[in-house]
Amino acid sequence: MNDTFLKACRGEKVDYTPVWMMRQAGRYLPEYQEVRSKLTFLELCKTPELAAEVTIQPIDILGVDAAILFSDILIPLEAMDLTLEFHEKIGPVFPDPVRDRQSVDRLIIPDPEEHLNFVLETIRILRRELAEKVPLIGFSGAPFTLATYLIEGGSSKFFFETKKMMFTAPDLYTSLMDKITECTSVYLKAQAAAGAQALQIFDSWAGVLAPGDFERYALPYVKTIIADLKETTDIPIIYFANNGATLLDQSKTSGADVLGLDWRVDIAKAVEQIGPDISVQGNLDPSALLLPEPQLRERVAKILAGAAKARGHICNLGHGIHQFTPPSQAKIFIDAVHELSGKSS
Amino acid sequence: MNDTFLKACRGEKVDYTPVWMMRQAGRYLPEYQEVRSKLTFLELCKTPELAAEVTIQPIDILGVDAAILFSDILIPLEAMDLTLEFHEKIGPVFPDPVRDRQSVDRLIIPDPEEHLNFVLETIRILRRELAEKVPLIGFSGAPFTLATYLIEGGSSKFFFETKKMMFTAPDLYTSLMDKITECTSVYLKAQAAAGAQALQIFDSWAGVLAPGDFERYALPYVKTIIADLKETTDIPIIYFANNGATLLDQSKTSGADVLGLDWRVDIAKAVEQIGPDISVQGNLDPSALLLPEPQLRERVAKILAGAAKARGHICNLGHGIHQFTPPSQAKIFIDAVHELSGKSS
Repeated sequence: MNDTFLKACRGEKVDYTPVWMMRQAGRYLPEYQEVRSKLTFLELCKTPELAAEVTIQPIDILGVDAAILFSDILIPLEAMDLTLEFHEKIGPVFPDPVRDRQSVDRLIIPDPEEHLNFVLETIRILRRELAEKVPLIGFSGAPFTLATYLIEGGSSKFFFETKKMMFTAPDLYTSLMDKITECTSVYLKAQAAAGAQALQIFDSWAGVLAPGDFERYALPYVKTIIADLKETTDIPIIYFANNGATLLDQSKTSGADVLGLDWRVDIAKAVEQIGPDISVQGNLDPSALLLPEPQLRERVAKILAGAAKARGHICNLGHGIHQFTPPSQAKIFIDAVHELSGKSS
Repeated sequence: MNDTFLKACRGEKVDYTPVWMMRQAGRYLPEYQEVRSKLTFLELCKTPELAAEVTIQPIDILGVDAAILFSDILIPLEAMDLTLEFHEKIGPVFPDPVRDRQSVDRLIIPDPEEHLNFVLETIRILRRELAEKVPLIGFSGAPFTLATYLIEGGSSKFFFETKKMMFTAPDLYTSLMDKITECTSVYLKAQAAAGAQALQIFDSWAGVLAPGDFERYALPYVKTIIADLKETTDIPIIYFANNGATLLDQSKTSGADVLGLDWRVDIAKAVEQIGPDISVQGNLDPSALLLPEPQLRERVAKILAGAAKARGHICNLGHGIHQFTPPSQAKIFIDAVHELSGKSS
């Protein structure tokens, strides 16, 4: 197996820089569109054979160094006994937002083997099929990010209801976060037990918090999950606080082996701030995949040089690949990372 | 006139820290809602007597130290001969996005006296009515931010079309930016000539750019406008690059007298990075206005202490006040800034 990705996560010596892309199994690939055309997004997440199929597509098509489970961060929330819908052009919707004591108290902690078995089954299939290829990354959302969807009832622009609960009903907020944290912890442990070889925690909305609020209202729950995981598994853990340039001093205390970086931050500066004990992952602007090849390669070279002093570097985008990106441009990116970091062909 | 705000902009000694709030003339005020209920948002912007009335409301109700013209950053774009609509819950819409040579070439540079006279008339009314009270801030959007609305056809999540033009049609992008820059420059000069006593340039979407792209595709146009203004007026200029923590090293070269800071950045760290030659404005999370009074005052105290070493500090929110904020909470904020910074009552 190509274990370059796992080595870079652990800060071990690698022959070249491994690369994968957030949302690499997704709508920009015609092969994905074809599978997806036959069923809804949620159905696809819940059909292990097909979820595994789309997970593997970018490995063969693009030559990335890791696979990431095809799923959605909101899947375990649905299993907390909530209704989850995906609406075209709007995105995820929880028709019954969680904003009071009663709705927090009725949330259950799902048993992954029972309520989320389709995820574990997808992982088991993937481990068999990927055995000779690349490692498999499992994932979850971070508790703050997950909480925003429950409290707002879906995506949000200002996160007003979330912050309102945080600032005016801190006990309720804590109860909700404790439950989401427990759910996430159990869920990630089950993914590891099923065969995930690394785990990424997506804190997609961490960047809407001021540093002091992140430290108080979001990070402690991430730390709990990571500490919990570290008791039962030694697979690498990646923490990605999106738009988190101002949160790095706190994020580096999360306990994660790798910190994901979005494209807003100069990777060399971030590496300096993060120090020698944690690997980094990132951070090309997904839209920069549109650049003509010479300029795209220049950007890759700059990212590789900027990350040279990191304990380890996994090249990636700074956010998910956009659905209107030509796959041929994604291939230029992947190839450039490999070539420019010295992979022998 | 209370000139504390202007002095802080210039880094002159002040007796207390001046404060105003972005979107202080807005929907959170019942007095605003009442005026607004009689006409559309765009009609209100274009009715000088009423626009002046809502501009003044927060001065009397909250006791802020500056007034900001009631208008919208998209108003001058409409005057470039574009159709602009405001849709409930969606926001601004340009039904004919500007994405090709033909649609760039047909844009006109509006003559403010002719096409935007209602703005200048609002400023003239305000100067008469505010004479004994507080200074009046005029404003515009920054070219990059304005361009995103034209290219995307409204608000956006990923700014894919904007970056696509930037990365794949750089000449077209430059032509569009040059036109918007000229339009903005002429517009701000006219606001100054009509009586605006300070000007704020809102770069609401600067934060979606990687630092290198900001430096290349956004900042030069801001610099052109500020340099242009500095030739004809000495009123203070505030540049606010929202979500711009990673852009501070570049923003401080903009030529602005004051840099606005959003709430994501620790103000003490930002002040250290900005240095002794520029004043700062900010930066309470607007949602933190919901906090119980003692905690809200604590946050104000922390911001005031964090900005102590700045050349000058204008206290403000880190973004516009949210429409569901109780005005009484806004009043606690304003009063706390005044009291804690030593205003004699």
